Amino acid sequence: MKPFKFFLQITTATVLFLTCLFAQAQDIKVVYHVNSDINTASAVLGNVRNHLNADPTVKISLVTHGPGIDFLLEGAKDNKGREFSGMVADLAGKGVQFRVCNNTLTTRNIDPSKVSMEAKIVPSGVAEVARLQAKEGYVYLKP
Amino acid sequence: MKPFKFFLQITTATVLFLTCLFAQAQDIKVVYHVNSDINTASAVLGNVRNHLNADPTVKISLVTHGPGIDFLLEGAKDNKGREFSGMVADLAGKGVQFRVCNNTLTTRNIDPSKVSMEAKIVPSGVAEVARLQAKEGYVYLKP
Amino acid sequence: MKPFKFFLQITTATVLFLTCLFAQAQDIKVVYHVNSDINTASAVLGNVRNHLNADPTVKISLVTHGPGIDFLLEGAKDNKGREFSGMVADLAGKGVQFRVCNNTLTTRNIDPSKVSMEAKIVPSGVAEVARLQAKEGYVYLKP
Repeated sequence: MKPFKFFLQITTATVLFLTCLFAQAQDIKVVYHVNSDINTASAVLGNVRNHLNADPTVKISLVTHGPGIDFLLEGAKDNKGREFSGMVADLAGKGVQFRVCNNTLTTRNIDPSKVSMEAKIVPSGVAEVARLQAKEGYVYLKP
Repeated sequence: MKPFKFFLQITTATVLFLTCLFAQAQDIKVVYHVNSDINTASAVLGNVRNHLNADPTVKISLVTHGPGIDFLLEGAKDNKGREFSGMVADLAGKGVQFRVCNNTLTTRNIDPSKVSMEAKIVPSGVAEVARLQAKEGYVYLKP
Repeated sequence: MKPFKFFLQITTATVLFLTCLFAQAQDIKVVYHVNSDINTASAVLGNVRNHLNADPTVKISLVTHGPGIDFLLEGAKDNKGREFSGMVADLAGKGVQFRVCNNTLTTRNIDPSKVSMEAKIVPSGVAEVARLQAKEGYVYLKP
């Protein structure tokens, strides 16, 4: 029994140590909370691109609601007349996730089929922003 | 002694396991940081209502300072002329907490008696937003 | 061996207990995320001062990018014509850290020598905001 007990203790200590190490080594996960209007969307997507360049392993999820969803709607264009879809597809290809609030779609009477194929619809934008932080280890950033 | 030691080890492992489980199962707590003016207050309270609908167990605390306190002052009305007090009382009845920054009251020379009875006055709004996150396990959301 | 094992178990339990205690007793660290323009800078610095008054042990780091860096540039003045440098030096003397985004300097063609001596340049403002939260135990506040 004695070697077994010793093994147990060493295991416990190792688990604790590795847990700490793991927390340090883990890739960073960030939720970008976006509810500002389409005029700020280019700057937001620029921030995301800069973030990925600075930290290529970062996992970014953009959760949008209210006016924040507009750049993810069919045919949305920036103020230079360029469609957002290209940039969104490019970032999605790099692992960025896009979330659109279903409460916003309902309130504003927007057909879900108008939402970019790169985006996933979630029941509530604010609840998703909170859940990602409280349950999935994301940190918060409001661009 | 041997069974006792074994019991201790099992207990330690169980405590660790339950701590992890508990963190996962715990209700989500969210601080809404509100310092935008009264024109945005209806949207903010709408977000809170949607949040509660999507996650009925969520615990929400609205910490207000600067222009963010205005909807919690006596007689405050939205831009359709409706008093905020009804909505505030309704949300308070559902467990939402309202906090008003005393620094703001002092700077703006507002008598504390003008503050909604549903709200509690805290010494500093920003310090409260930080404290709830660092010491009480709240996650952050700026509506 | 028996006393040694018992010692090990007591140590493990103590470490766990102290870790919890330490987390509670630790000073609060807050990242202020600043990307709003110079007209809001006086209010932001006022928030920081109020925060320090309410919690003198708080550690505050202001991470600036986009228009948020402007109050940290040479000769920047508030809308009453006072230079920001005095207030910045005063807060820096109280331990507040100032960070400026290098991506912003590059995009806006600003010479790094124009940045306040109190501020440190970081490769990416958004990546720094995320890193401080995920790796250094900071909580978030957007003033």
